[in-house]
Amino acid sequence: MRRQIVLTVFLLLASEACEAASRRNVLLLISDNQNWDDCGCYGNEVVQTPNIDRLAKEGVRFSHAFATTASCGPSRAVIYTGLHTHANGQYGHGHGYHTFRLMPKVRTVFQMLVDNGYRTALLGKQHTTPEEQYPFTFNPKIANRDVLGLAKAGAEFINQADDQPFFLVIAYHDPHPTSIERPGWGIRTDYESVAPVTYDPKDVIVPSYLPDQPEVREGLAGYYQQITRMDQGVGAILKSLDESGKANDTLVIFTSDHGSSEPGAMSNHYEPGVRVPFIVRNPDIEQHGFVNSGMVAFTDIVPTILDWTETDGPDYALHGRSILPILATPEPSGWDEVYLSHVFHEVTMPYPMRTIRTAQHKLIWNIDWRSEYPLPIDTLNRATWQETLRRGDRLIGPRTVKKFLLRDEIELYDLQSDADEIINLADNPAHSELRLELSRKLFAYLKKTGDPWLLRHDLPGVGEDDPSPAFGHRRALNDEDDYVSLFDGGSLDGWQLRRADRKGYAVERGTLVCPADGGGFLFTDKEYGDFSFRFEFRVAEGANNGVAIRCPLVDERPAYEGIEIQILDNVGYPRALKPTQYHGSIYDVVPAKRGALKPSGEWNEEEIVCRGTRIVVIVNEMVILDTDLDNIKDAVILAKHPGLQRKTGHIGFLGHGSRVEFRNIRIKEFDP
Amino acid sequence: MRRQIVLTVFLLLASEACEAASRRNVLLLISDNQNWDDCGCYGNEVVQTPNIDRLAKEGVRFSHAFATTASCGPSRAVIYTGLHTHANGQYGHGHGYHTFRLMPKVRTVFQMLVDNGYRTALLGKQHTTPEEQYPFTFNPKIANRDVLGLAKAGAEFINQADDQPFFLVIAYHDPHPTSIERPGWGIRTDYESVAPVTYDPKDVIVPSYLPDQPEVREGLAGYYQQITRMDQGVGAILKSLDESGKANDTLVIFTSDHGSSEPGAMSNHYEPGVRVPFIVRNPDIEQHGFVNSGMVAFTDIVPTILDWTETDGPDYALHGRSILPILATPEPSGWDEVYLSHVFHEVTMPYPMRTIRTAQHKLIWNIDWRSEYPLPIDTLNRATWQETLRRGDRLIGPRTVKKFLLRDEIELYDLQSDADEIINLADNPAHSELRLELSRKLFAYLKKTGDPWLLRHDLPGVGEDDPSPAFGHRRALNDEDDYVSLFDGGSLDGWQLRRADRKGYAVERGTLVCPADGGGFLFTDKEYGDFSFRFEFRVAEGANNGVAIRCPLVDERPAYEGIEIQILDNVGYPRALKPTQYHGSIYDVVPAKRGALKPSGEWNEEEIVCRGTRIVVIVNEMVILDTDLDNIKDAVILAKHPGLQRKTGHIGFLGHGSRVEFRNIRIKEFDP
Repeated sequence: MRRQIVLTVFLLLASEACEAASRRNVLLLISDNQNWDDCGCYGNEVVQTPNIDRLAKEGVRFSHAFATTASCGPSRAVIYTGLHTHANGQYGHGHGYHTFRLMPKVRTVFQMLVDNGYRTALLGKQHTTPEEQYPFTFNPKIANRDVLGLAKAGAEFINQADDQPFFLVIAYHDPHPTSIERPGWGIRTDYESVAPVTYDPKDVIVPSYLPDQPEVREGLAGYYQQITRMDQGVGAILKSLDESGKANDTLVIFTSDHGSSEPGAMSNHYEPGVRVPFIVRNPDIEQHGFVNSGMVAFTDIVPTILDWTETDGPDYALHGRSILPILATPEPSGWDEVYLSHVFHEVTMPYPMRTIRTAQHKLIWNIDWRSEYPLPIDTLNRATWQETLRRGDRLIGPRTVKKFLLRDEIELYDLQSDADEIINLADNPAHSELRLELSRKLFAYLKKTGDPWLLRHDLPGVGEDDPSPAFGHRRALNDEDDYVSLFDGGSLDGWQLRRADRKGYAVERGTLVCPADGGGFLFTDKEYGDFSFRFEFRVAEGANNGVAIRCPLVDERPAYEGIEIQILDNVGYPRALKPTQYHGSIYDVVPAKRGALKPSGEWNEEEIVCRGTRIVVIVNEMVILDTDLDNIKDAVILAKHPGLQRKTGHIGFLGHGSRVEFRNIRIKEFDP
Repeated sequence: MRRQIVLTVFLLLASEACEAASRRNVLLLISDNQNWDDCGCYGNEVVQTPNIDRLAKEGVRFSHAFATTASCGPSRAVIYTGLHTHANGQYGHGHGYHTFRLMPKVRTVFQMLVDNGYRTALLGKQHTTPEEQYPFTFNPKIANRDVLGLAKAGAEFINQADDQPFFLVIAYHDPHPTSIERPGWGIRTDYESVAPVTYDPKDVIVPSYLPDQPEVREGLAGYYQQITRMDQGVGAILKSLDESGKANDTLVIFTSDHGSSEPGAMSNHYEPGVRVPFIVRNPDIEQHGFVNSGMVAFTDIVPTILDWTETDGPDYALHGRSILPILATPEPSGWDEVYLSHVFHEVTMPYPMRTIRTAQHKLIWNIDWRSEYPLPIDTLNRATWQETLRRGDRLIGPRTVKKFLLRDEIELYDLQSDADEIINLADNPAHSELRLELSRKLFAYLKKTGDPWLLRHDLPGVGEDDPSPAFGHRRALNDEDDYVSLFDGGSLDGWQLRRADRKGYAVERGTLVCPADGGGFLFTDKEYGDFSFRFEFRVAEGANNGVAIRCPLVDERPAYEGIEIQILDNVGYPRALKPTQYHGSIYDVVPAKRGALKPSGEWNEEEIVCRGTRIVVIVNEMVILDTDLDNIKDAVILAKHPGLQRKTGHIGFLGHGSRVEFRNIRIKEFDP
């Protein structure tokens, strides 16, 4: 009995929900790789978009709307889930060998609306994985480029039933290039379902992020042609909506998944990548045709649709909020920043970025900044990029090719004075407070949204408070600050020569030189016991020298009175060698590994670490000797080498009459 | 009627297949993160593994067997698919937020065997995604660590039916650490299903890839304890197999998914990561108890099982081959190399590596070598690593922490002379032919196995023949070879001073200095027209200097007779400035962007590019000026600056009596 009552109440509630929802439809139109300002209504006076412009007149046009990731599949997943890519699992593409997909626990707006009694359709480019999380009640196969075919199918769906509200997405494949191999935009006329409107390359507007080159203009002409074709599709579906009599119950949104396929846009967090056209027509509000400067992001789309359709959200928090309350407010307060999150485009191109964008500034955290920025295959193959490489251009648009490929860990731009995002202020002392403030906000936001990348990476300057397990890596890779210089580059101050019968050392062009006709023992004035001693050196062919450590100030036998670490051109040395004579060996005592030394004439890096009885020699970051003097038990050796017992002494270069150069000589002493 | 005949024939064939197969079972035992040599039979005299040792006596022990990726989920996917991780889609883990899974077209050995009438079970650690590609006919829930429980369930499965052959995998969770937070190996006694055998940390053998530290020994003691526990499980299932009477029809394989969880093993292509124990007991062959030196890899397991069970493979080529024909040949010919492929462990830690390993050498291609090597979370949290960081150790085992984290693009090791893989011979001229030969083999193998990473990355030295679209990046990032030096670091050779009423320039410690009390115009002897001019500089606070380009040899007005690119301390300059006076501006003509300059006292990099009428100034890789002189139409400016019309001239430093230092001064001239 009780069960029956519960069921009845449920059915009543459900039918109320359906009734409420039946008046509230949604039409979402998504362009493919279109820059925010390449519409007439956004200020481009060349490209013809009369239908999009009409929608802007009848609705509200957002000037600061953002895709949170400028990658097709992931961006669509943000649109459909209301979650950042780092939280929904669609980190990159889902098709072919890319294999990404939504996490099973994530619910799409299609699932939520179907549960609320909606009919759903996603016509055109789907790019959605896995299928089971995208329930479409209507799913005909229409060619992505057939914009009138899409409109026709859309009309069929809109008119399909009157007792169920609808959620219709038309995802165009324009103005995505139709071919990555062909020149221009690869326009394929067999896709045309409307009379083509073509553009002369000389008329197009080359945006500041691209070079003004013939192949760029040719591409833009094709891109414009596709935008105009798509606009005709937009006109057709809006006309059908009007004819259906449902326009007054339908929220219409027009946007693009992200910016153009050209380098600097797609797969970047620069403005051309993430800033998108965003037009909302709400039949309920009277004001229209104005610009809303509120900063909105794709994470706001699902909350907006749920709000409009009075649909329950999932049992976890979404990352955005409904924009319906601020639609009619041109300058809404509290809509002052957006957060962006990118992980992959293709599975072969990880490049995690996290970004906060305020009205004036943008801070980008390139998590894997050491890595080469991976251009998506679409961009990589575009003539714009390939011709830039072929010509050997130093710049791609407003930035250097090098900086485009190898980015700073933190990028901080003032968009007011530097709209092209070129002058990175992150390390500029005048902006350190701003950097810290934005970093803190970004970090708090990523924590709140459960970003798994925070488990492995520290946002610099902020991670100290809440370090990841990899926190110590930064210090391990940056230890030079602990060292003091032993050579001023101009004099032998701090050094003294012994065995002065040899001609001694010289300073040439900032380097310390043991000339071929010079040599002798050049010792530090100070004594050192436990230390790390670093220097760079290069040897003339066949050269022989050595580094004395823990040595008394002697005129002879430093290799016995102290310890000598060999410096020697292993390959070019003209005579036969014992194992303990090769470079890095403790002379006459412990042999070093060979093969780490560069050919004579090239600079090497060396470090000698002495800590108690352990001696380590590192050449070019390869450990060639790691020995404990305590393990030397040979009585003959011990008797011959009293220096092995010493705890401290001078460091010295032991010139043997062949040319060796040293520079960047520095030391860190260990606490006893 | 015809249909009935076909069906009958099919059933006859199927029953024959079942009959043939019914004599041929497979028992595959997989240890979790165990180094290849941590078994008694592999030479470790401390850890007790009597049951594994017995299996080795009754079978064949491979000395050179390799996991192709040292990451748990992906390695198991290789074991079960016979395809490298780059081809099966299981690029990284499949659980939680990692979301990787096999590509739908890929078939697992479980699917193939089920289709051939087999019963299948994978007891213990599964780590397999997605479920639908892993059909198990028997799938009880047994705790991973309950080794006797696993044996008991295994026995139940073995004895389940006699009319169907079986494929049984027992995947232990030992000796994987039981806790990433707790000290030691985090042994949890509540997992014990056998009487624990414990080890004293002082008795363990510290392998050469780890530091001999107390926390390492404590960990190894726990690791040994788990190996011995697992060994008892191995004993129990082998006993049950004997008791079932099916041992003579059963191929038994024992291996580990990859090496230990310690740094340098797991998720590396170094030997401790990829080399695994591998024992095969084939009841059909009489010889046993010997070592087989053939090089085998996990890609060979599926072909071997298909061979043994007479099961059809998939409709695509597998990456390995059956080892059954060479089992009884201790030194089989044609088994001289293996190929390894790693992509991810966690989704947050891409680190694609491709490797060829021959009997003597190993060549590793670290595709994303610029990136910091990402330790898997297991390793990252181990005391071994955390204590290394806490102590600030320079080394982790036999290599530097720096080199462990930042690797070379190509690593080439001679394993005979350098078993620890420390001395990278890749750039050693003596090994260039070997490097090329191994690179070519590796490249051909990756092409053959359809590696998607080849679509985006060029194996250096080999990619020229078959370049990826990103081929030109390497050159774009390495253009310094095209430049010639204009300053020898020791003299002013090649330069001449004008406006000699000032005190001129000095050379100090390899740098060219304009002293505070010096200055004048220091011009190159040569003239340059179109060029890229690069130099480093640092300014004293408030300093002012300039670079003349295309300038005649004048004693006055070089900023008008030629062109002057400003050098100026924007922040510290004591007087008010016009926009065209800031650093990088064309003096009095075109203003530069500000903010790119480092504070006074720090070195900056600058480049001035002149090509026809286009002038570009780049400071610290930020483009601060990019102008076309043709766009200057102001008649007053043009009259005042005749130098703007010049096509060629001298380059010069225009000292104004404040200290500025220059170094690394170099130029590249463009062809006219």
